[in-house]
Parts: sequence; C-alpha cells; structure tokens
Amino acid sequence: MPLDEKFTPIRMGMIGGGPDAFIGAIHRMAARLDGQITLVCGAFSSNAQKSRKFGEESLYLPQERVYGSWQEMLKSEAKLPPNKRMEFVSIVTPNHLHAEQAYSALELGFAVACDKPLCHRLEDARLLANKVEKSGTPFLLTHNYTGYPLVKEARHLVRSGAIGSVRKIVVEYPQGWLATPLEQTGQKQAAWRTDPERSGAAGCMGDIGTHAENLAEYITGLQIESVCADLTTYVPGRRLDDDGNVLLRFHGGAKGILHASQISVGEENGLSIRIYGEAGGLIWHQQEPNTLIRTHLDKPTEIIRAGINHSNLCPAALHASRLPGGHPEGFIEAFANLYKNFAAVLRARRTGSAASPLERDFPTVTDGLRGMLFLDAILRSTSQGGVWVELNK
Amino acid sequence: MPLDEKFTPIRMGMIGGGPDAFIGAIHRMAARLDGQITLVCGAFSSNAQKSRKFGEESLYLPQERVYGSWQEMLKSEAKLPPNKRMEFVSIVTPNHLHAEQAYSALELGFAVACDKPLCHRLEDARLLANKVEKSGTPFLLTHNYTGYPLVKEARHLVRSGAIGSVRKIVVEYPQGWLATPLEQTGQKQAAWRTDPERSGAAGCMGDIGTHAENLAEYITGLQIESVCADLTTYVPGRRLDDDGNVLLRFHGGAKGILHASQISVGEENGLSIRIYGEAGGLIWHQQEPNTLIRTHLDKPTEIIRAGINHSNLCPAALHASRLPGGHPEGFIEAFANLYKNFAAVLRARRTGSAASPLERDFPTVTDGLRGMLFLDAILRSTSQGGVWVELNK
Amino acid sequence: MPLDEKFTPIRMGMIGGGPDAFIGAIHRMAARLDGQITLVCGAFSSNAQKSRKFGEESLYLPQERVYGSWQEMLKSEAKLPPNKRMEFVSIVTPNHLHAEQAYSALELGFAVACDKPLCHRLEDARLLANKVEKSGTPFLLTHNYTGYPLVKEARHLVRSGAIGSVRKIVVEYPQGWLATPLEQTGQKQAAWRTDPERSGAAGCMGDIGTHAENLAEYITGLQIESVCADLTTYVPGRRLDDDGNVLLRFHGGAKGILHASQISVGEENGLSIRIYGEAGGLIWHQQEPNTLIRTHLDKPTEIIRAGINHSNLCPAALHASRLPGGHPEGFIEAFANLYKNFAAVLRARRTGSAASPLERDFPTVTDGLRGMLFLDAILRSTSQGGVWVELNK
Amino acid sequence: MPLDEKFTPIRMGMIGGGPDAFIGAIHRMAARLDGQITLVCGAFSSNAQKSRKFGEESLYLPQERVYGSWQEMLKSEAKLPPNKRMEFVSIVTPNHLHAEQAYSALELGFAVACDKPLCHRLEDARLLANKVEKSGTPFLLTHNYTGYPLVKEARHLVRSGAIGSVRKIVVEYPQGWLATPLEQTGQKQAAWRTDPERSGAAGCMGDIGTHAENLAEYITGLQIESVCADLTTYVPGRRLDDDGNVLLRFHGGAKGILHASQISVGEENGLSIRIYGEAGGLIWHQQEPNTLIRTHLDKPTEIIRAGINHSNLCPAALHASRLPGGHPEGFIEAFANLYKNFAAVLRARRTGSAASPLERDFPTVTDGLRGMLFLDAILRSTSQGGVWVELNK
Repeated sequence: MPLDEKFTPIRMGMIGGGPDAFIGAIHRMAARLDGQITLVCGAFSSNAQKSRKFGEESLYLPQERVYGSWQEMLKSEAKLPPNKRMEFVSIVTPNHLHAEQAYSALELGFAVACDKPLCHRLEDARLLANKVEKSGTPFLLTHNYTGYPLVKEARHLVRSGAIGSVRKIVVEYPQGWLATPLEQTGQKQAAWRTDPERSGAAGCMGDIGTHAENLAEYITGLQIESVCADLTTYVPGRRLDDDGNVLLRFHGGAKGILHASQISVGEENGLSIRIYGEAGGLIWHQQEPNTLIRTHLDKPTEIIRAGINHSNLCPAALHASRLPGGHPEGFIEAFANLYKNFAAVLRARRTGSAASPLERDFPTVTDGLRGMLFLDAILRSTSQGGVWVELNK
Repeated sequence: MPLDEKFTPIRMGMIGGGPDAFIGAIHRMAARLDGQITLVCGAFSSNAQKSRKFGEESLYLPQERVYGSWQEMLKSEAKLPPNKRMEFVSIVTPNHLHAEQAYSALELGFAVACDKPLCHRLEDARLLANKVEKSGTPFLLTHNYTGYPLVKEARHLVRSGAIGSVRKIVVEYPQGWLATPLEQTGQKQAAWRTDPERSGAAGCMGDIGTHAENLAEYITGLQIESVCADLTTYVPGRRLDDDGNVLLRFHGGAKGILHASQISVGEENGLSIRIYGEAGGLIWHQQEPNTLIRTHLDKPTEIIRAGINHSNLCPAALHASRLPGGHPEGFIEAFANLYKNFAAVLRARRTGSAASPLERDFPTVTDGLRGMLFLDAILRSTSQGGVWVELNK
Repeated sequence: MPLDEKFTPIRMGMIGGGPDAFIGAIHRMAARLDGQITLVCGAFSSNAQKSRKFGEESLYLPQERVYGSWQEMLKSEAKLPPNKRMEFVSIVTPNHLHAEQAYSALELGFAVACDKPLCHRLEDARLLANKVEKSGTPFLLTHNYTGYPLVKEARHLVRSGAIGSVRKIVVEYPQGWLATPLEQTGQKQAAWRTDPERSGAAGCMGDIGTHAENLAEYITGLQIESVCADLTTYVPGRRLDDDGNVLLRFHGGAKGILHASQISVGEENGLSIRIYGEAGGLIWHQQEPNTLIRTHLDKPTEIIRAGINHSNLCPAALHASRLPGGHPEGFIEAFANLYKNFAAVLRARRTGSAASPLERDFPTVTDGLRGMLFLDAILRSTSQGGVWVELNK
Repeated sequence: MPLDEKFTPIRMGMIGGGPDAFIGAIHRMAARLDGQITLVCGAFSSNAQKSRKFGEESLYLPQERVYGSWQEMLKSEAKLPPNKRMEFVSIVTPNHLHAEQAYSALELGFAVACDKPLCHRLEDARLLANKVEKSGTPFLLTHNYTGYPLVKEARHLVRSGAIGSVRKIVVEYPQGWLATPLEQTGQKQAAWRTDPERSGAAGCMGDIGTHAENLAEYITGLQIESVCADLTTYVPGRRLDDDGNVLLRFHGGAKGILHASQISVGEENGLSIRIYGEAGGLIWHQQEPNTLIRTHLDKPTEIIRAGINHSNLCPAALHASRLPGGHPEGFIEAFANLYKNFAAVLRARRTGSAASPLERDFPTVTDGLRGMLFLDAILRSTSQGGVWVELNK
C-alpha cells in the first residue's frame, strides 16, 4: 500500500445508472456528498455508446475509464495498479442483474455496494452471502432508510431498553404512484418494477416491502419469525403485487403489522414505523425524518430532533448528522451515511486496520438475505391462501 | 298527542351513569347540548340510595323521578301520562346489562339509546335486532364517531364516487391506557373492561375494535366479508385481549387492515381511517376531527375543513356542524349529533310524521349486530390459530 | 334564600341571540353543557314578534317569559320572586348595546354575562367597571379562549416559573373571512362587525385583536404598557380596519408582537400564542387546543396534552376538562368553562358562601376594560402615523 | 478556451472553512453534490499550518494548491494557466472579511461565491455592487433559502398572479440557540456572531433577519420601503441584538411583519413565510421545506409538494429538484441549487454563451446590498426609539 494512499478519496466504479436511470444518480450524489469517494470509472448502460457518452460528457470521466460493458470494466480495472483501480463497484442495475454482477466483482476482490433488494432469487442471495462471509470483502446493501440519524437514535433507544421490552411494531410503506397502469405508458421505472423477469417474484413487496421489513429488524434487533400475508394486484393487467398486508410475529413474542402499497393514491413515500414497548413508544416517519416521537407511560410525549447540536442523541445519530437541528437533512444525506461508513471501512482496509463500530454500521449482504427470506415467506403464505408460515433459515 | 307537545323538548330517562361512571356524563352532555332533550328521570346506580342522591343533588331532578332500580323506573314511567313520561331511555351500563334493559324498555314502548357494544352475546344481539325491526321503535346505538361532520363528508365523498371504487382501507384505533395492569389498581373503567363477565368475550376489540369496524363500514358502505385475526393479551394476568391485528376482506373486493390496541404507550384515542380508491383517497384522524385529507391522482392533496361556512361540504356534514371553521368541535359535539338526530326522529314520532333522511342518520341496532358478528368472527379466527373466517349472516 | 334552591340550576335570561344570530346560540350551548344553568327567559330580538316566536318555538320557553324588549324583561323579571326570576342575564347583542344593557341589569341587581368586547366606548367601560367594583355583582366577560384547559396550563407554567422570566410574546389571530367585501352582500355578521356605529372605532382589532391581547395578558400576567400599531383597511369601501400589526412592550421588560387579520385568505380562526422565557417556551394554537408545546433549554420539546387522565396538569386545567386525553374538547367546551365557573360563583352567591379560586377563574369587566384601553392605544398610535404610545390607566 | 474544457467540472477555490468552521463544510457539500464543481485549492485558515494540514489531509488536495493565506492563493492561482486555475472563489469567512476578499478576487477576474450577509458596512456593499456591475463577473451571494424548490414555486405563484395582489406578508425566523450567553463559553459560532467587530452592527438581524428579508423580497418581488423596528438584546453582557421585531411597508402598499430571534428557546431554525393576497395565500416553513400550503378564497386549501414527478410545479421548482415527492430534499440540496446554477453560469462563461434564465436564478450582490440597506434602516429606526424610517436607495 503506497503511503500517498492515506490522503486520497476512495475510488468507486459504477454498473448501471445511465441517463434514464433514477437510482444511479442518487448513488452518485450520496457517494459524492462527504468528499470521501470519487467516481473513477463506470459501465453505465448496456448500450456501450450510451455509456461512453454519458460517462464522458455528463460525469466528466476520462475516456479510458468509461466502459462499454460491466464485464469489460471488471476485467480492465482489475489490471490497473492498486492505487489507480477502483476499490469498489456500485451496482445500480435492475434486480435480476445484481447477483451475477456482485458475484463477479467479489471474485476479483472488489468490494461491492449493491442496490436493494439483493437479488431476485433466494438461492442467489444465499450464494452471495456465503461468498461475502468467506472472503470478508466489504459489502454494502443500500437499505438507505437505516442511514437516517433518528432511525439510529430509535435503534439506540430500543436496544438500550428505553421503551422496555418490545410488544408491537407497526411498519408501513404506502405509495400511490402505481395506482394506474403506468407501466403501459412506457414509464421506465414502472416498467421494470412490474416485470417479474427483472424484479423477481414480488412487486410492491420486493421494491418497498423489504425496506419496511429491514427497518423494523434494524431498529429493534428482533427477527421476524412468521408471517401471514395478503398480497394483491389491484391494477388490471399488472403482473406483480402492487399492495400487501402482512401480520408479523417476531422472535421473542413481539407482534406486528407490515403493509406496503403502490396504489394508495396521494401517498408519496410514506415509510413509517411505530414501536411500542412495555415502558414507552417510538414513532418515526420518513417524510419528516428529523423528528422522532418518544412516548412514555407517565409523562408527556417528547419530540426528539436530529442535529449535531443535540447532545442528547446517541453517538451513532450524531455520527450520521452534518447540520444543527432545524437545517433539514433528507434522503440523500441518509443515503450518503451508508457510503460514508462504507468508505471508512474501505479506508481502514487500505491499511489493514479496523474500522470503528460506528463506521461498520451499514446494511450488508446479511440484510439482503433477510429481505429475500421475508419475500419468500410472504409469497408462500399468499400462495396458500393467507396462512401463517415461518421464515426459512 | 296533546298540541302543546309541539314545543317541548324530548324527555329522556337514564339507566346507569352514576357518580363514578364515565360514559353516562358524556351521554348527558351530548343530549343536553342542542336543547332538544331534557333529562326527566333516571336509575343511576344499582345502589338505590346512591342513585337518589346523585339524581337529586347533582342532576337537580325531582325526588319522585329518581328511581332505585331500572326495573322500577320502567314500570313507573310507563304509568305516567304520555306527555309527562320519558320518551326514551338511555342505557349506559356495562355491556352485559344492555340486552335485558333494552329489551324490557322496548317491550314497554320506550325508544332506546344504548351505549356500544350492543351487548355481550351474539344471540342477544339478534333478539334485539328482531325486536326493533318488528316494533319499529327508534333505537340509537352510540357509535359516536360517526357523528363527526367530516366522517359524514368522507361517507358522502366515497358514496358519490369521488375517489372511485374503493381498494384499500386502513383503520386503526391505538390506545395506551392499559399498557400496565391498571385493572389491578382498582380503577373502575379498567376493571369492567377487562372482565369477560361484564365486557363479553372480547376486550380491546369489543371496546374499541368495534368502533373501527363500524367507522369503516359506515363511511364506505362496504361490509366486511372475512377476517384473519391475531388477538393478543400482552399484560400478564389480564383476562381479555388488549391488542388485535386483523386482515380484512370486504364484499366486492376491497381489502384492508384493522388494528386496535390498549397497550400502545402514549397513544390516547387514536382512531383513524385511510381509504384508497381508484381515483383518490381520504384520511381522517379522530384526534384532529375537523380536518379531512383528500388525495387525488393528478393534483395536490386538499385539506377539507369542517365548519358551517364551508359550502363545499355535503348536507349531512353541514347538518352536523354548529360553528364556523376554525372553532373546533370535538367529541361531545359529535356525540350530540347522534342525540340531535335521534330527538328529531322522536319528535316526528310524536306527530306520526316522518323524519328527514338527514335526521335518520344515526347508528342503530343493525350496526350493533354487525359489530357482534365482527367480534364473533375475529374470535373464531384467533381461536383457530389465525385463519381466514367469514362473518356469519 | 329558600332551602330548595340548593338543588336547582342557575337561572339565566338572555338579551339578543335571535334566530339569525351566531354568538347567542353558542352562549346557550355553553351555558347548557354542564347542566348547571337553565335558560328561563329572554328578549331575543329587537322585533318583539320575532323574539316571541323564537323563544317559544325554538327554545321551548313559556310564553310569559319571552319578552318583546330587553327593558321589559329586566323590569318584569325583577318583579318575580327570587327563586323564580332569572339570576343573571347574558348579553349577546352587538357591541354598541352592551353598555346600557349591562348597566341596567346591574342596577337591578342581576349578575351579567356579556359578550366581548365590553362595549364600544372607553368611558362606558370605565363606568361599567366602576359599577361592578362598587356593587360586587358577578360579571362575566366572555373572552372564551381563556376557558381552554391548556391555556390554563400555560398560565400555570408561566406563573410558576417553569419557563423563567418571560422575554418575548408572539400572539396572532389571522382570519380570512373578510378578504372580500362580504358586508356588501347582506351577510349580517359581516355587516355589523364592519360598521363603526355598532362595532366601535376598531374593526378587526376590536373583534379579535382584543382576544389576542386578553390571551397574552391572561397567560403571562404581564400588562401591555405601550404599543406601536399599524392598522390597515385593505378591502375598498370598508369603514373599519381589517388587519393590524402591533409591536408590544410589556411592563417589566418583555416585548412582543400582536397581529390580527380578517383578510388572511384561508385562515379560519388561527389564534395562537408563543411565549419565550429565559428557561423555556410555550406554544399553543386555538385550532388544535388540546396540545400545548413546551420547550426547554437542554432537553427535547414536550407535547403536553389535555385530558382528565393527565395527572401532570395543574388543577385549573383539570377543572376545565371533561374527557380523557384524545377525546377532543373544543370551542364550546372552553366557552362552557366560563359559564360553569360563573354558575358556581352564582351558586355560592345564593347562600352567601365563597366560591373557590378555581371557580372564580373567568374574565370579568376588568378584562373588558383592559381590552378597551388596548384598542384606545392602538387607535391613537395609528392615528399618529404609527408611533409608540402608552396605554392609559 | 481549450476544447477539453467542455467536459470538466468547474474549479472552485475556498477562503475560510477550516476544521472548526461550520458554514465552510456546507458550502463544500453543496458545491460537490451535483458533480459540476470540483474544489481545486483553498486557504482554509488564517493559520497557514492549520490550512495546509486540513486541505491535504481532510480535503485530499495536492500540497501546492493549499495556501497559507488568501492573498497568496489569489496571487498564485492567477498565475496558473486558465484551464488549471480556479474559476471562482468561495468566501466563507466571518462577515468583516468578505468585502476585501471579494473585491480582491473580482479585481483578478475570479468569479465569487460569498456567504451572507454581504459584508458589515453599507459603503463596502455599494462598492462591491458597483464592481460587480461594471465587471459583469458572476457573483453568488448564498441566501441559500431561495434555493428550495417550493420557495421557487411560491415565487412563481405570486408572480403569476395566483394569489392576486399581495396584501400582507408575515416572515419570521425564530431560533433559540443564543438564549444563554453561549459566547462566553468559548463556542466559536456564538463568539463571532455576537461580536460587532466581526459581525457588523447587527447581530440576530444580520445573521438571520436578512435571510427573512431576502426571502420576502425574493418570493414577492416587492421591495421593503420603510420599517419600524424594535431590536433587543436580552442576554446580559451581549453586545449585539439577539431579537428583533419589525413592521414593514412594501412598495405598492403591501404591509408586513418580520421578526427574528436567537432567544426563542426550543426553536431551531424556524424560518417561515406567509403571504396573503386578494385571492389566496401561501405558507412555507423551512423546517418542512417540501410542503407549500396554498389557500383559496372559495375552495379547500391545497398541499403542494416538492418532487420531480409533480408536473404541476413550475419549471424553476422542477429544475431545483432531484428526487420524486416524499424523498425529502433538505438544506444542503437547497444550498446546492445555488451552486448548481452558479456553475452553469460559469460553464456558459467558459464559452461566452448565455446561461438560461433558470440557471441565472440565484441571489447576487444586489441581494446583498438590499440586505445591508435593510439592516441600516432597522438600526436607524431602533436608534431613534422605534420610528418609521425609509430604506435608503
């Protein structure tokens, strides 16, 4: 490891995220925000010419680092000297491509940041999880909502016993953008998300239900043990579920409800969670992410606010904050917190040192596997008419 | 019918509602508010002396109209001349007493206003419903939340097609007041509500789950066809459920979620409903009852506000309003709307004329029977481990 | 005083409040709500026939107690035996009539409840205040917003030092209903409120600005010492101000802002107050009256909620509550709290005993005089082009 | 201009913004977010060693581009070839340094991004404004709140007549962080902001009052013509105002209120604005920046939401958005919108072409001068005991 590597940003490559993509641009903004990561290469489209034009003219990359295919990129980058080649690849392609691309990158020793859900088949998820576990290569799965400071505060409060033993969890994720057959109008985001070949066997639940599942498990540390699901496709002609209602039972006795929807007209991105314990409760809404409501048995409800100046917050929440209270941090900042921590882990990796626990706090392939097990269970439950089924191990 | 009866208030008697009762005082305030009803007699306690003291000293009733028992009251009042005796009786006793008291009053020709749930056994509910149907006697069941102006506006909007065909209904009723074993401290409200002998076989779901069920059916006009329920008793030693999560399927294809809780720490009386149709949505929270959110497919969400000055509101909503927008009307006013309409029906009955549709808009024994059928179904579902069951007819 | 007077309601008469009136109906509901007051007579309209028809047919009063004029009522009631005649008169006429009617009633020994503002000339206010002071007759001025439980809690918190010495007060009262020349359409409420002959020299500020002034002084106990005002008439052809912005300086050094408006389109009845002290702050909005926000220097903001079950509330707040938290109490309930306390004072007066401090908590002629002094000052300030002027004593 | 300059980011230098600074880090994040700007050099501290260490080790800059003083930086950069040297300098030092640094940079032909307020003496502001006007050099003054999408939407709605002629503007900016003498504890942000030598003659009003003034003028296009101010220093020992209440009169007849505070305990960064016109109103709160409330004379209030998917928004609002509705964009994103537009203008400058009107939408030295004129006026008003004074030209 050359000495000058101490004071350079972490080098990122990207697969996918071309001009028409939505999530790729977000990954780039998130990676850029804190100045710890620099984009050095990419294969931004399955169309080589499109990839090159976009990479050079919009992302200002040198010609030789914009590739015509992801396979070419992995191969070429692997041949570059260590202090020049990309250190991790960010995979922002549709779900069905994640597994092969991630596996190939891991094989060549590249760390991986992968958009969620992890992949579209449970067996691939297991393979990837195995690969990561054996290799020890850093792997970031961008369940980005865990990056919000007050999600971390909620986790801290639950884990430290502030609300007592958890009894009930209500997590929901209503959206309304697919209330009409938008996929039939040529809208790209709608098209691939409602296509089982590209999305996997779950539609709404794969796209956003897994975020809800991940949020509940991340905050509480409790694993969903069994589910009873009622998935529905409301829009005629649609091939995947666009709504799902699920009863939950957690390991240890807590119960809950998870519902997600793409047909709840007027809802934008309404992820929220309510957690009730024996001694208190917590309420958080993604659309107003800088407020966390904390309830008590015997005293007034408190409004916990995000911000670097709020010394009552836990270290993880403060570590995830950039601004004083009242200066709203949003979606991109939360997303960036994943990349910031991932960069710190990769920086430690450069020198063989260990990242701190605060820095190792980001979702990984393990979370991705949990999501796939959850989807597998609710699909089994639904296919049997809505019975209780256990999650596989 | 003597002519002078045209310009006198409707005469009410009351069973229950003594000095320690909670709901009786509310019924009296609700009945009083609009000046259409006057309390003329009562049997306020199973303790005759307590009843008398309370009736005379706190309610300023004449000695001879405060009775030592409800049986005595019914018998004595029936003997008074028509323009003196009570015209209806308000029953505000614990659930297990409703059926006999209501039935006896109906037998003597008295109209009945009864607190919810209707009773504690399904067979009694059927008997009462039959009796009312055959006799044609006015019967008010105080599912009071239907009295809010904006609940009526929501009903109007759904029924008139403003949000298109209904797809999804999320109705919830979180409370937190029974998160601890309050019934073991001698608190009376907690004691009878957690006692199967007085409450019936359902605890939380009987007390507030039925309000949620009623609200969903009242607004949408859709009947719940089948349910899959997961009821829980969280507090050790408690004899009835204190929490319940239920998946719903409505006649016609809509689906939904109903959850109610008495252990959601910090929640006060959080009844809310969200209804999503093909073309729009509606959101209403009981704790901010003067706001109704209306969403659209293609334009900004609207904030519909209660108030007699809002000419956009439907006749039923305006009929249920007393004040201009921004002058909050609350729980008692909504409750009073039931009594106001009930009084109008009884006034029409005096002269044998017909009350208007706006006046006949209050929950009746039929709603009470629906509630009992709902409770029966979720108890059957739970007892079978959480399977889908249909509501009986 | 006959013994049986112990267990009868307090007898109220009313001047004004006929079929087209708005505020009269509210006074009657407020007086009725708690069962402590009964309406026994009235002169509801300057049109004798209209008064009689309304009193008998809508209010179910006996023919002989509905009068054709207020003068006739005062004279006739004074001749009735003490246990039959009205004990107080409620004056709900336009402002310019208050003074003479109140004075006449006081002369005959009747207690008075008077709508605000007290009258329309400062000299009359002084006369009335003197009269009340000398006679000791109970006088209620219905600055109804002081009746809210959480306004009382705010007062308690400020007075007990919970937020430290008060520094800044922001009180505002935006409405939008007069943004157009509504008075030119024949709307009665608009007509008299914009008519200097009936309203007095201040329009918006007299109608609602005084509520804001009263609320600030009621909660903090600080008197406004000087003002700098900028009143405006926005709507062409209107004869009185429909908007006002005022800088405030309080005795003791606190400062503030008061603004009120009738042309703030879309605002309904947005009275709110924010009080900042050295150690904390309080925020209350009339449109969500059951929530009081309390801020702290060093810990999360608290949401204080109204409700008889909240033992953290002060005795005055609990005394003003009827329902548990989450069961919204609104405008009428707050209004009724004034009448409830007034009735308790009159009940004590029957027997010559003393009402408790909790019961004597309602605005009186003194508050009315303060309001008139405030109006006088802002009109003087405005007429001099917006200079600082002191309130007269 | 070399051809390869078409596809490279704009090169930024920075003065100030060292390790202890707050605003410098925000400028860097804002500049970074959209990938259009790259930091190439800086003089981050008046301590040369500190500057170098920070620049190299935290910002990963090459040694030769981290300077020991801003004078050195300007001189050295000016000597570099055009396609290597910085194209603009971002000035994030305390207020008293802005004028000289900005002037010097302009003299050498560098574009300037300067934190607000523009400077601390009115005469310097005039000099700078003159210089910019004569040279035509792009100048960005970071009144960052104008960068929010819904502030732009509000501007569009007002300017297009959606709310009719503007009558009343209420703009406020409460904070509470200086409610105690924080500057005496060594807190750096508090220290310079309360020091007249570094901040200028206005404290609270200079720091945040000017943001409020700018927001009101930016949205409405109306200029404040005269003011009546009451500035206060509440915290003993403080040398500058920590609170201010101001009555406003705008050119054309609109009136308003502006108040700002640093002693409003519990308030974080509560900038908000309410604008009432003849036909409607608009309400926006910085702490929930993705919602704009729009009121109407005769129909329900609307909730306008930010997001690239909301086709109802104006081009400027969409241009300022990165994400679909419900994915909160916050303070940094709004700040970045200024830099994004500034970069577009500088990119056009490279080739001598013209930036589009959407791109030229950012506050400039002219806004800075308006702010200084506003401060000058309120200080004159206050020093004369609170009289109405006109803003100078």
